[in-house]
Amino acid sequence: MIPPTIEWISGTEGNILPGHVRMIDQTRLPLELSYLETADVETIWRAIKTLQVRGAPAIGIAAGFGVLAGIQSMNTDDPAELAAEAHRVADHLATSRPTAVNLFWALDRMRAVASAGDVSVGSLKERLAREALAMAEEDAAMCRAIGEHGLTLLDGVDTVLTHCNAGSLATARFGTALSPVYAAREKGRVLHVYADETRPLLQGARLTAWELMHAGVEVTLICDNTAAHVMKSGRVGAVLVGADRIVANGDAANKIGTYGLAVLARAHNIPFYVLAPTSTMDLGLSHGGQIPIEERAAEEVTEGFGTRTAPEGVKVYAPAFDVTPAELITAMVCEKGIIRPPYHDALEKLSGAL
Amino acid sequence: MIPPTIEWISGTEGNILPGHVRMIDQTRLPLELSYLETADVETIWRAIKTLQVRGAPAIGIAAGFGVLAGIQSMNTDDPAELAAEAHRVADHLATSRPTAVNLFWALDRMRAVASAGDVSVGSLKERLAREALAMAEEDAAMCRAIGEHGLTLLDGVDTVLTHCNAGSLATARFGTALSPVYAAREKGRVLHVYADETRPLLQGARLTAWELMHAGVEVTLICDNTAAHVMKSGRVGAVLVGADRIVANGDAANKIGTYGLAVLARAHNIPFYVLAPTSTMDLGLSHGGQIPIEERAAEEVTEGFGTRTAPEGVKVYAPAFDVTPAELITAMVCEKGIIRPPYHDALEKLSGAL
Repeated sequence: MIPPTIEWISGTEGNILPGHVRMIDQTRLPLELSYLETADVETIWRAIKTLQVRGAPAIGIAAGFGVLAGIQSMNTDDPAELAAEAHRVADHLATSRPTAVNLFWALDRMRAVASAGDVSVGSLKERLAREALAMAEEDAAMCRAIGEHGLTLLDGVDTVLTHCNAGSLATARFGTALSPVYAAREKGRVLHVYADETRPLLQGARLTAWELMHAGVEVTLICDNTAAHVMKSGRVGAVLVGADRIVANGDAANKIGTYGLAVLARAHNIPFYVLAPTSTMDLGLSHGGQIPIEERAAEEVTEGFGTRTAPEGVKVYAPAFDVTPAELITAMVCEKGIIRPPYHDALEKLSGAL
Repeated sequence: MIPPTIEWISGTEGNILPGHVRMIDQTRLPLELSYLETADVETIWRAIKTLQVRGAPAIGIAAGFGVLAGIQSMNTDDPAELAAEAHRVADHLATSRPTAVNLFWALDRMRAVASAGDVSVGSLKERLAREALAMAEEDAAMCRAIGEHGLTLLDGVDTVLTHCNAGSLATARFGTALSPVYAAREKGRVLHVYADETRPLLQGARLTAWELMHAGVEVTLICDNTAAHVMKSGRVGAVLVGADRIVANGDAANKIGTYGLAVLARAHNIPFYVLAPTSTMDLGLSHGGQIPIEERAAEEVTEGFGTRTAPEGVKVYAPAFDVTPAELITAMVCEKGIIRPPYHDALEKLSGAL
């Protein structure tokens, strides 16, 4: 029902290589569903750069596949030469989005396999291919687990509210915050979703609304400023959001607007859940005040739709995300299960168990 | 410093008539300040219809001036004929925005003067002219009074946050929620303003940011979903908003998003003030639940900027306003002074005093 965001298509039965990447071209959404299919490294580099693929896990997977595309047709008998080429392609792909942590993490996994050495060219190609596919499968499995765990929190809930896109389109498949919605649907249970449009870049309107409609989930789009009114009307049973970073005390950074939703949820006695893989946890920081807040360009607010909608020269404050304090988070969900307050101890235990 | 939104320009010294209307063409904002100058009833009708002039008080004033434009050059000795023409023009102008209460109220004032009769054509023209000008002057004076009273609430405050446009552009001059900011500026005091962009129609970005910049007030534009983060950072000393309707128990309807701001203000211990003239008070309704909530067209959310930004056929919930319960309102400000809780008694007393 919910199509893979990105996958490797093998050309011949039984062999992973040669093959090509097939990804949803997210720059064409929500107007049309079209796929980018390519085995060209430059095209994959540009796809990451221009947000044809976006969302930290999906970017990492694209990079892994990009390395495969770069080495699969290499004609050499020297495994060292193949390994060097894999490193060269990885270095190049790393320049596509210089601040994407998952990109570097995925490329490092490919580099480590390339450097393990002492095998034939054929075996090395096979190992690289298995590693790239494993990253995609692991991500889908992790998202799936988040969905199953998350769904256990939603007994008796028939409507949830979400912000931005922590959905299938940000991952290999299923997503994080939206995964329980898909898990429910597979069990024949209907969860209705209110999707914040999420200014300034409208990921909720463009991506979340699209992927839920495409999967046959009933979704209602609202402006960000309408969430409070919808909550007051009693129509929201839970808020589900993703996270960009969760620190040791349980404070969570996520798309701008998430913190306000958490305050509103508390005021309306609505549970507020953060769903994110353990890779999002950064226990090196002790509290949310230590998370640097990136500011975005004023133009994303003043002329985000090709039309200028604010005076020339107006001062704009456009932080990319905000920090929700742990005390407003009812529970967290990761691939290993549910995490409940007090978060400091729970996250430390989890980290020891990782 | 802050230019009149709409005024009557007399052609000859000492006489009100003949003359013409001069209004800021708000459809050209925020890109350019241009004026519509006309003595043609059809042009004024269209200006109201197409939102070249908007905001309840400003629309009422435009309508009064429209009647003047319609009768000023009438060549007759029969006052009954002049009165009939005034009624005919008023009936026509009333069709420009069929749900605008201030429009009908202003036209009724003009009709009452036209029907008072028993005077010469010259005197009747003069009386109509004085009535139309009085409405503009009364509105500016009322806004000015709201500003002076409101400013007394802002001792020690250097930054306020506002939503939508309850500014000069919605009135003859000065505005309601923004009037204390202009009053402060006249006294040489600097108040910095955070302006919510106010989706879906972006009145904050297009109008509030423009009029504050034009008046030399320091303004920072934010997305609606950023207000919570700004409040948490300690940068907001008070929230100032207008109102569309205030009912007997003090509940106040205003632009969608206002209620959420009130909840957030309470959570951050920031005073939340509603500034509106007594004409906004509708004591015939006992509580906010009785106020009907108008829903806007989905297209305002999905393709508000000439570009489609959400999937075709997506379900949208777009209420035009929400209701802030009285208990979240720190104080109200009207032209007669400050109103404090318990609002039911205060509003009843005020109504007796009207």
